[in-house]
Amino acid sequence: MDIATVIGLVGGFGLIITTILMGGNAGGFVDIPSVVVVLGGTFAATFVMFPLKTIIGTIKVAMKSIFFKSQDPADIVRTITGLAEKARKESLVALEKVPIEDEYLKKGVLLVADGSSEALVRSIMEIELDFMKQRHRQGQGVFKGMGMLAPAMGMIGTLIGLVNMLQNLEDPASIGPAMAVALLTTFYGAVMANVVFIPIAKKLEERSEEDALFMQIMIEGVASVQRGEHPSVVKDKLEAFLAPALRENS
Amino acid sequence: MDIATVIGLVGGFGLIITTILMGGNAGGFVDIPSVVVVLGGTFAATFVMFPLKTIIGTIKVAMKSIFFKSQDPADIVRTITGLAEKARKESLVALEKVPIEDEYLKKGVLLVADGSSEALVRSIMEIELDFMKQRHRQGQGVFKGMGMLAPAMGMIGTLIGLVNMLQNLEDPASIGPAMAVALLTTFYGAVMANVVFIPIAKKLEERSEEDALFMQIMIEGVASVQRGEHPSVVKDKLEAFLAPALRENS
Amino acid sequence: MDIATVIGLVGGFGLIITTILMGGNAGGFVDIPSVVVVLGGTFAATFVMFPLKTIIGTIKVAMKSIFFKSQDPADIVRTITGLAEKARKESLVALEKVPIEDEYLKKGVLLVADGSSEALVRSIMEIELDFMKQRHRQGQGVFKGMGMLAPAMGMIGTLIGLVNMLQNLEDPASIGPAMAVALLTTFYGAVMANVVFIPIAKKLEERSEEDALFMQIMIEGVASVQRGEHPSVVKDKLEAFLAPALRENS
Amino acid sequence: MDIATVIGLVGGFGLIITTILMGGNAGGFVDIPSVVVVLGGTFAATFVMFPLKTIIGTIKVAMKSIFFKSQDPADIVRTITGLAEKARKESLVALEKVPIEDEYLKKGVLLVADGSSEALVRSIMEIELDFMKQRHRQGQGVFKGMGMLAPAMGMIGTLIGLVNMLQNLEDPASIGPAMAVALLTTFYGAVMANVVFIPIAKKLEERSEEDALFMQIMIEGVASVQRGEHPSVVKDKLEAFLAPALRENS
Amino acid sequence: MDIATVIGLVGGFGLIITTILMGGNAGGFVDIPSVVVVLGGTFAATFVMFPLKTIIGTIKVAMKSIFFKSQDPADIVRTITGLAEKARKESLVALEKVPIEDEYLKKGVLLVADGSSEALVRSIMEIELDFMKQRHRQGQGVFKGMGMLAPAMGMIGTLIGLVNMLQNLEDPASIGPAMAVALLTTFYGAVMANVVFIPIAKKLEERSEEDALFMQIMIEGVASVQRGEHPSVVKDKLEAFLAPALRENS
Repeated sequence: MDIATVIGLVGGFGLIITTILMGGNAGGFVDIPSVVVVLGGTFAATFVMFPLKTIIGTIKVAMKSIFFKSQDPADIVRTITGLAEKARKESLVALEKVPIEDEYLKKGVLLVADGSSEALVRSIMEIELDFMKQRHRQGQGVFKGMGMLAPAMGMIGTLIGLVNMLQNLEDPASIGPAMAVALLTTFYGAVMANVVFIPIAKKLEERSEEDALFMQIMIEGVASVQRGEHPSVVKDKLEAFLAPALRENS
Repeated sequence: MDIATVIGLVGGFGLIITTILMGGNAGGFVDIPSVVVVLGGTFAATFVMFPLKTIIGTIKVAMKSIFFKSQDPADIVRTITGLAEKARKESLVALEKVPIEDEYLKKGVLLVADGSSEALVRSIMEIELDFMKQRHRQGQGVFKGMGMLAPAMGMIGTLIGLVNMLQNLEDPASIGPAMAVALLTTFYGAVMANVVFIPIAKKLEERSEEDALFMQIMIEGVASVQRGEHPSVVKDKLEAFLAPALRENS
Repeated sequence: MDIATVIGLVGGFGLIITTILMGGNAGGFVDIPSVVVVLGGTFAATFVMFPLKTIIGTIKVAMKSIFFKSQDPADIVRTITGLAEKARKESLVALEKVPIEDEYLKKGVLLVADGSSEALVRSIMEIELDFMKQRHRQGQGVFKGMGMLAPAMGMIGTLIGLVNMLQNLEDPASIGPAMAVALLTTFYGAVMANVVFIPIAKKLEERSEEDALFMQIMIEGVASVQRGEHPSVVKDKLEAFLAPALRENS
Repeated sequence: MDIATVIGLVGGFGLIITTILMGGNAGGFVDIPSVVVVLGGTFAATFVMFPLKTIIGTIKVAMKSIFFKSQDPADIVRTITGLAEKARKESLVALEKVPIEDEYLKKGVLLVADGSSEALVRSIMEIELDFMKQRHRQGQGVFKGMGMLAPAMGMIGTLIGLVNMLQNLEDPASIGPAMAVALLTTFYGAVMANVVFIPIAKKLEERSEEDALFMQIMIEGVASVQRGEHPSVVKDKLEAFLAPALRENS
Repeated sequence: MDIATVIGLVGGFGLIITTILMGGNAGGFVDIPSVVVVLGGTFAATFVMFPLKTIIGTIKVAMKSIFFKSQDPADIVRTITGLAEKARKESLVALEKVPIEDEYLKKGVLLVADGSSEALVRSIMEIELDFMKQRHRQGQGVFKGMGMLAPAMGMIGTLIGLVNMLQNLEDPASIGPAMAVALLTTFYGAVMANVVFIPIAKKLEERSEEDALFMQIMIEGVASVQRGEHPSVVKDKLEAFLAPALRENS
């Protein structure tokens, strides 16, 4: 699934660079000071926006968006149905020895095997879900913030260029190139915001919703197992979370 | 109902093309590289925004927006009232053999016939409703995302054109046409966003709300049937969901 | 109350037309193709946005915004207090014969007179309230959509005009008038959006909130009557919904 | 507290007028037809947006924003703690004779003294709080609406001016002044929106939140008094609503 | 953690000033009247927007954003687990003598030691949490308001400059510099909004969420201690609030 992010980034920058090369004037689109003021200004304002640890945490989160290996929700349903069967045949305590890959599901099952009340298990699992969402929202927030700041910094750079140009109108030949350079910061800001920052913020949001869905399936599944519901009821219930479409394409 | 989407798309593009033809310069509005950078850039950034399977799922969802055959809510009420009558005359188990077209309603009725508790039936049906909404939101999100990206890509294309033009002001005669070409990407982005992407996102939202309404009627209806309520009470209750206006025009 | 809508529309267009006439060049502001592309494009995209039956329903809803006769909330309180008195003196069954003008209140009272449980009456009345709100939201949505599309279509028209103009710069004398015509679509879009579509969407929202308030008063009132509360308690309770200001100006 | 509104309005207009006077061309900023189209158009569209009685009610609400005398929340806590003491020493009925300045608190206390159930008192008080909020939202809505309409009307005025100017380019000397006049409507719209309408809408929102806080304190306080809680518990509970900062600066 | 804010502000202004100096025309970017109209206008409209005491409170809140010393959430969990142990070994009353640094936690523990009911303790703690959030929202609101007003005041300043310039087009040599000065207010407004006001509003929001998280941990922790839950259960429950990532980087 990481392929989509890579294809998108490569394709987006590829198209823009190709368009520039077709104009026959690629050199005119590279201006290091303009890059520095847009990206530097965006990062500086991001530091004012977020605590240092949120920004560091976001780097990890962004990596996840590219190298994330998505779980198959049908697998989760199968695992939990298996647990329900074992719990009915043997006992809730027997679940303790079942090897479970997913850390979150494992924690819930261990709480059940320990004999915790259903309300306690659900409460612990829901708190973890809520705060997973909140942490993901922070990561999305950093990218959304940069997506808002990059065009603003682009505009600030263009204003600096325009003011400089307007105060030196003696040489008419220099007006065009000066204005071209002034527009470059707006261009950089628009590209960074619309090809990188805003789309990655959105992908993190999608990932977070997917994770939340999986965790909700696990919460309901663990509760069903604990109540000793029949495996086929458990399956019916959990498959309600899955659209036919989702299963076919996963 | 798919007619409105078709009329709208044909009418919108027809009007814009007619206006262009009236200007007597239709050739000046076709520029393949501009089309490529706007549409290609929009799709590339959409790939960064959404997981591959969400994008694939969206294509199906968009087809639905055009070829969807809407149910008549009055029909649903009639079907459920019929079930309520049968349940009172015979028994809940007898519902198992009633042929029901709608998959969702059928699932709920089978759960009732199987003797599941009211809370379980409602919980399974509500989970399916919630996740139907969530999946639809994703499809709308893809079109909303493209509706936001297309004008941005249009602006990026125009900035590339402007920078190229400003660095070649020697030939005054070329300035006008160069700027005209630069504006084309903005034009393409605005048309794609406002005639296609944003309106289709909105139609998907409308469809999703309609589906959700039908499913809510079915949830309440199945619960009423299960509680053995009198068919006329069931009818009263379910018709509260339907506005007179909705019935007349359905 | 429809007077405000009429005054506003007449006043808004009157002011704009007067300003144009004062410029001594009214003919320059009329361009039929520009009107067609802006209004036609807006309606076409609206057809993509909404199902046909929602659009048809909206026409009725807009009429309501102009010819609506608002109820006096104090009247509603008085009617319900009267019902509470009758219910205490005679019986709930006696309410069946009381003539009630408002369809919604009548339905609730008949349910009470029929001996339905309080929960059922409230549930039916609340479902109707929720779906009244949802239907009104759709009507507002159509006008909000047109308020968003009109300026976009205006911009698309202006871009067509600019591209045409920029490709024909040979005759300097034609540049000014050509650009003037190009700007007309932006002008039309801005006027339609800000004088008609957005304000009417807002008025429909206000009407919907008012209707919802009246229906909430009726729900609470019917419940009080059913519980046999003392008429003075009913009055106290229902008047909490009414601000002194609302009563004085109603 | 009304001082802030007055300082802000005088300061804002003072600064803008001073800046204009420093340009040595104050006469060029006064254009009566421009004022009329911006303000008139804004008011006309506001009439389409809101029912007449909402607009009239808003005038009173705006006056409140300037001449409002804020209550001291510590006073409210003190008053309610006093009531709790009296209720414990004497009886709930004795509260009837305590003089209470605030109408809302008085109504709640009288209901308690009359022996109404706790649920009824809370329900009446909460309904009044909810509808106070809704009425205030309407007042804010009118100012928010005008804050959105004023720049739009400014843009419409500027478009009219530009179209007029572009159709009369023969005399180059008149282009500058004509464009200056065209920009005035945008200027007026921006000033009205950003110095008057949007800030006042925000202040009304702040006031509404403050009122709601006071009313929530009163609801909890009246409930505590009715349950016969110890005055020191009542004080502890109600002071949780007050930040140290709020108390220090009130 | 205050380091990020300082780095961001110094870095952002440093980059912008360096870019200006590289243009070799730094003097052209300083215009005192422009600074006065943008900042003064922003502050004036802020006074119309907010009550005086909210503005004063915001200054303190902003200081906090820079000099704030964040608590370690793991410390909070450790403290509460310690309290749970003490409560089980000794008694709830014994908690009264435990020295607790955090004022909020201390208040909750003292209420428990005093023998208040669990519902009362939770209700007092939650009210304080809700109103902490509301006060923080006000502080963020002031900065958000200034972030919206600064660019608007910049635009108003630019409009004044443009109108002045357009009415004095006789001397072509003065047009460039006059327009440069006119653009300065837009430049100042964009810098203040995007480097200072909007980012600080966001940081305050982040801080508020962090504080709220800590307070929620304390509420759940105090409730667990009061119910006499086993310290290891308390630890399990509270650690669900903490992401592994959060613990590692705190």
